[in-house]
Amino acid sequence: MSATDHLVDANQQYVERFSGARPARPRLQLAVLTCMDARLDLFGALGLDIGDAHLLRNAGGIPTDDALRSLAISQRALGTREIVVIHHSECGMDGFDDGEFRAKLEQESGVAPSWRVPGFTDLYADAKQSIRTVRNCPWLPFRDDVRGFVFDVASGALTEVTAD
Amino acid sequence: MSATDHLVDANQQYVERFSGARPARPRLQLAVLTCMDARLDLFGALGLDIGDAHLLRNAGGIPTDDALRSLAISQRALGTREIVVIHHSECGMDGFDDGEFRAKLEQESGVAPSWRVPGFTDLYADAKQSIRTVRNCPWLPFRDDVRGFVFDVASGALTEVTAD
Repeated sequence: MSATDHLVDANQQYVERFSGARPARPRLQLAVLTCMDARLDLFGALGLDIGDAHLLRNAGGIPTDDALRSLAISQRALGTREIVVIHHSECGMDGFDDGEFRAKLEQESGVAPSWRVPGFTDLYADAKQSIRTVRNCPWLPFRDDVRGFVFDVASGALTEVTAD
Repeated sequence: MSATDHLVDANQQYVERFSGARPARPRLQLAVLTCMDARLDLFGALGLDIGDAHLLRNAGGIPTDDALRSLAISQRALGTREIVVIHHSECGMDGFDDGEFRAKLEQESGVAPSWRVPGFTDLYADAKQSIRTVRNCPWLPFRDDVRGFVFDVASGALTEVTAD
């Protein structure tokens, strides 16, 4: 039985206890950008419930063009006002060698990736840079309340990072 | 008190009941790509636990370059093998007018976005297309087990979508 089959089974039980539809517009008017890391349980770690917040996740929790696109839609079409950026300890993008990775992909597939892989070398410095990138994005109408945190995967604790 | 302050408070309680560190490599060797929508509680809807799976989320659950970058890292650096793509009913990207949105951003900010906003007009057709996009990505070493679903935000149920 594949992992995906297990998800399908679990979903059948979820449907039985499902508490019903919620509005599409996030109740907390909040969007959270963070890493895809399997150790980040955002509902648990942030006390979120269904319908509370948009959750955006990629490798590193990096404000890529795609993340900024999603944030623009979140604010302009679905009414969010606050943004939280969360990086975390033991992140796979910490110390990641973009050049080596892309060269390997090209060597194996015969096709160079059209994208870069933005790694970083200092977790806190990168978190600060990510906050600044979001604050400087000209397509986001609400940038006064952008805050950043580092999540410790060993303790579950958030530590706020200030960009200035 | 801002929404973000509420998250910080909730996190203090989370730390007290935190069950401890898990490995960075997802236990189910699984990556899930889905929408940022606030109504998707992936741990609940898919029966996931901390450490089980990489969770990638953007506006629409679309396999953008950024999502493919994240999937490549997930498989090559962190050992995942299966991929699940989940779109959902009542998605904000359903019927989204890319041209109108980008024109408005340029008009308001004076700067044209560097990115496009890929909307869609048929939820199931787009889910199929997303499965195909992932299966055709030359930088993913494991593409034999890519499955797609539509999540119903009114019932909590997953329905499988087959691409062929």
